[in-house]
Amino acid sequence: MGSTVCDAVAGDPDLELVAAIDPKASGTVHGIDIAPTIEALFDTDAEVAVDFTDAAGARENLRWLAEQGIHAVVGTTGMTPEDLDEIGDWFGDGRANCILAPNFAIGAVLMMKFAAEAARWFETAEIIELHHDQKIDAPSGTAMRTAQLMEEARAADGAGEWAADPTTKVVADGARGGVAGGIHVHAVRMRGMFAHQEVILGTTGQTLILRHDTFGRDCYMPGVLLAVKQVASRPGLTVGLDALLG
Amino acid sequence: MGSTVCDAVAGDPDLELVAAIDPKASGTVHGIDIAPTIEALFDTDAEVAVDFTDAAGARENLRWLAEQGIHAVVGTTGMTPEDLDEIGDWFGDGRANCILAPNFAIGAVLMMKFAAEAARWFETAEIIELHHDQKIDAPSGTAMRTAQLMEEARAADGAGEWAADPTTKVVADGARGGVAGGIHVHAVRMRGMFAHQEVILGTTGQTLILRHDTFGRDCYMPGVLLAVKQVASRPGLTVGLDALLG
Amino acid sequence: MGSTVCDAVAGDPDLELVAAIDPKASGTVHGIDIAPTIEALFDTDAEVAVDFTDAAGARENLRWLAEQGIHAVVGTTGMTPEDLDEIGDWFGDGRANCILAPNFAIGAVLMMKFAAEAARWFETAEIIELHHDQKIDAPSGTAMRTAQLMEEARAADGAGEWAADPTTKVVADGARGGVAGGIHVHAVRMRGMFAHQEVILGTTGQTLILRHDTFGRDCYMPGVLLAVKQVASRPGLTVGLDALLG
Amino acid sequence: MGSTVCDAVAGDPDLELVAAIDPKASGTVHGIDIAPTIEALFDTDAEVAVDFTDAAGARENLRWLAEQGIHAVVGTTGMTPEDLDEIGDWFGDGRANCILAPNFAIGAVLMMKFAAEAARWFETAEIIELHHDQKIDAPSGTAMRTAQLMEEARAADGAGEWAADPTTKVVADGARGGVAGGIHVHAVRMRGMFAHQEVILGTTGQTLILRHDTFGRDCYMPGVLLAVKQVASRPGLTVGLDALLG
Repeated sequence: MGSTVCDAVAGDPDLELVAAIDPKASGTVHGIDIAPTIEALFDTDAEVAVDFTDAAGARENLRWLAEQGIHAVVGTTGMTPEDLDEIGDWFGDGRANCILAPNFAIGAVLMMKFAAEAARWFETAEIIELHHDQKIDAPSGTAMRTAQLMEEARAADGAGEWAADPTTKVVADGARGGVAGGIHVHAVRMRGMFAHQEVILGTTGQTLILRHDTFGRDCYMPGVLLAVKQVASRPGLTVGLDALLG
Repeated sequence: MGSTVCDAVAGDPDLELVAAIDPKASGTVHGIDIAPTIEALFDTDAEVAVDFTDAAGARENLRWLAEQGIHAVVGTTGMTPEDLDEIGDWFGDGRANCILAPNFAIGAVLMMKFAAEAARWFETAEIIELHHDQKIDAPSGTAMRTAQLMEEARAADGAGEWAADPTTKVVADGARGGVAGGIHVHAVRMRGMFAHQEVILGTTGQTLILRHDTFGRDCYMPGVLLAVKQVASRPGLTVGLDALLG
Repeated sequence: MGSTVCDAVAGDPDLELVAAIDPKASGTVHGIDIAPTIEALFDTDAEVAVDFTDAAGARENLRWLAEQGIHAVVGTTGMTPEDLDEIGDWFGDGRANCILAPNFAIGAVLMMKFAAEAARWFETAEIIELHHDQKIDAPSGTAMRTAQLMEEARAADGAGEWAADPTTKVVADGARGGVAGGIHVHAVRMRGMFAHQEVILGTTGQTLILRHDTFGRDCYMPGVLLAVKQVASRPGLTVGLDALLG
Repeated sequence: MGSTVCDAVAGDPDLELVAAIDPKASGTVHGIDIAPTIEALFDTDAEVAVDFTDAAGARENLRWLAEQGIHAVVGTTGMTPEDLDEIGDWFGDGRANCILAPNFAIGAVLMMKFAAEAARWFETAEIIELHHDQKIDAPSGTAMRTAQLMEEARAADGAGEWAADPTTKVVADGARGGVAGGIHVHAVRMRGMFAHQEVILGTTGQTLILRHDTFGRDCYMPGVLLAVKQVASRPGLTVGLDALLG
């Protein structure tokens, strides 16, 4: 993921890649020496650091970045609510800001947003998520989260329950998938695919389909670059890419 | 269309069908005598009238409804800006309101809204509209309008031009479809289909697809019923279903 | 269904509608008096009869048609293997032929045929069937049958087992759908839809999707008309529309 | 492409990678030294060589391979009919065989085969091909070839002309795409996508969709491996992957 971020930053005319840090790698990337530790940022004019590490590493990095007054963009997953509180404190004094998002795929975030917005206008909705056949968990976290957001949006709008499931005669059961927020979430695992999700909403005489397809891990880059460009103007800690897509 | 509206109103537990008017029909619908002229509304407690006629008929009907203090919901197409001005005047005195929409398919209106909202986050977009093989015009008005809304949204957001068309070697040309708002709009005409539209937006590593499928003319009923229920609380003339989906 | 068949026959330049039979209806259809009993065929030049009744009715009708030397096209479901044996006997003496198919939708039959043919070239496959939200059984018979045909085709080709299901961490379960022939069959129930099925096959770097959409019960008519035109030249009993699509 | 083939061969339990040739590369791949010239095959037990070079290079390589009695699998494009005649001669003496295919994506070949087979049963058909936004030619060769095969299949089956284009009122024109074999071929160019094609066929009340999606150049590998395994048992020159999918 680090090298994908470096490619994206180096390829953006508005940004400059000034440092790259990887404790396990060496050599150069886009003419920049890969440094083993974050302290290498001392020697550069880095204004923004992008962190795709792990929860433990990110906590350390973020404290250090906040102390140095360097903005942070974080795609690392596994943060707890307590972590977020702490990170909010670190970036709370106005010296540096932080944007942290569990999903930097702009299309996925918009799909979730639109699905929640549309939910109240339809009586039925189901989600089909499709992933490569090495994914071991099902349904996907994004699909479960989408269903939950749709349910919450309906509740907030006073739209009531989804229409009842009509199935009274079960011919076979046990397909991959579950029910979340009253929505059937179907999980397809298919060789050749990457990551895909389709939200289907139906009412009388019509359906609305919101579908997000990803074709490689560079799908996160438009979101990362957007955050890098906006972080300086977003005081404190911002959680979730949707805050930037308002 | 009239009988479809009658079915929808009669089938809604919150509404009551009290009159049906059709100069060319007779008999009863849902136990109601079909009357030949709009004056039959005198004898009922009609609070809201639904008009799916033609531009000339609708103008006459709307003036009469405004005079009688009966709210109007209008799906008739072909109204000019001058018509709208006049209708706005008629329904401007607070006695009755009017909701007029060129498209009462909720899913189509949401698709257009979401497409405009998403446009700024993608470098490329194209529209595929698919209709039954008796449709004589191409591309469809909805597709052309969608492309225009997307272009306007990008302009308003300062998102600049769409990415340039890469095609430098044209192997064949003349497929059904055109360019609107910088967007290629492909028109498919297919036996068996009804009316469908897919907006595809792409950026690095991902695409977002917004698709609306209709399966019969009852697709307009959820939007009509929504308007019937809201018209009493929407002063004056409201144009477009999107105003009700805020 | 009867009136849909009458419309289709009357609308085909190569065919002539000469009789219509419905014990529960009266009046005329395309200028033909609707008769209450099958004996009305005595008075016409009927060469082919189309039967969409129920299993009990069809058994009686077919025996009578075979005796009279009138070809039969049968879309009635619920026939047992014993029924088929008996029908085969009735139409076995060369005086009249019978084509009986559980599914007259040409596209569905081709989808099943192609799915079976493609099965051996892919390591993974799943089926998504989508129906209107009044359907009470799930998964659909067509989807279960498709999965079974794919499994049989793989076995016949010596293609071995499908790739193992990767799911080791079940986040939620109980979505509508089951497993048939080693294939996950997902069942979507959606207001607004009619009947749809998608077979997805995947191998390294690619997927193949075979999708059939129906938009009304007239979807069976091309298959019925094909059978009506071919039945005279297909001796004895032919089961399944696929026999006509060779 | 060379390294993708090496990965695929090395990863197949039935095959062994014994040599790798690239005049512009050096180093090792899967423990094999990359050699600069084809003569390096002298020193190995190579039974089959895979050629993804260019037309000029492939001609030289194929003559040499035929002389050495080494089977060849060729994905190189740009061969003329005269080239094929010559290659057929080289591999005509029974010492070595050759399988040459312009498209090794199994799913694409099946899609084309099924589209041709289905064509006679539908009155209307259109093709939508979707590619990444760097592709400079439009429509794609695969789409044009598919349309041609469908037209030929209809002609062979005596199915007559496609239904007439209904468009009599052109609202806008000039979208990317052309007409081939009487079929409208729509070309979408979209950032984020790889290579995709959808064939849509329609008749009364129903549509059949055949769609092939690719997600990376490894999509050619199942076809290449299939050819590598079959080439020894296919005498002479075989053109087209479809011959192997019978």
